[in-house]
Amino acid sequence: MIATMPKPPYYAVIFTSLLKKDQEGYAEMAEKMEQLAKEQLGYLGFESARSEIGISISYWKDLASIQDWKNNSDHLLAQKLGKEKWYSSYHIRISKVERAYEFNTKENN
Amino acid sequence: MIATMPKPPYYAVIFTSLLKKDQEGYAEMAEKMEQLAKEQLGYLGFESARSEIGISISYWKDLASIQDWKNNSDHLLAQKLGKEKWYSSYHIRISKVERAYEFNTKENN
Repeated sequence: MIATMPKPPYYAVIFTSLLKKDQEGYAEMAEKMEQLAKEQLGYLGFESARSEIGISISYWKDLASIQDWKNNSDHLLAQKLGKEKWYSSYHIRISKVERAYEFNTKENN
Repeated sequence: MIATMPKPPYYAVIFTSLLKKDQEGYAEMAEKMEQLAKEQLGYLGFESARSEIGISISYWKDLASIQDWKNNSDHLLAQKLGKEKWYSSYHIRISKVERAYEFNTKENN
């Protein structure tokens, strides 16, 4: 789903990744981390898609919330496993959303 | 591909979208716009993935480059067609990348 957010400014953590061939346990961990992120203070929303590469964007109220989520103990374990088992590479970009606009139509086909 | 970028700061345009069922002409236009964006002054890179939603991120040197790309005549036509034909909704978020880090391994399976 496209995430709905308060007015800017807020923060976006852009996580782009390439997976290794062996993805055992990855989907379960990704789902678990998405749920856990939602419980964090300052969490605003989440969007993800995967084709050749995966792109996951989590949205946060401020930099302190991002830092707290980075240091969450369950998340630290997931990050460790991610490096050891699942990711051949990833980029993380911390960005401040300055402007946002949207287009919606009720028509769906 | 995961885009490789200069050191922050730079800008990311986060475009998340839901497509209508009728996608005639969409893939061709998306490919054309990706190629055209690459020729713009200030263009730094592009990443995209689509599952339930589509996420496309274009990276730019500064806000002026983003404005110029927004007003490019071929791109304006694509934006018009996008609203009329292809998108049931989209969000555009202009964000300033403040920090970036990456992980790479040579292991691919």
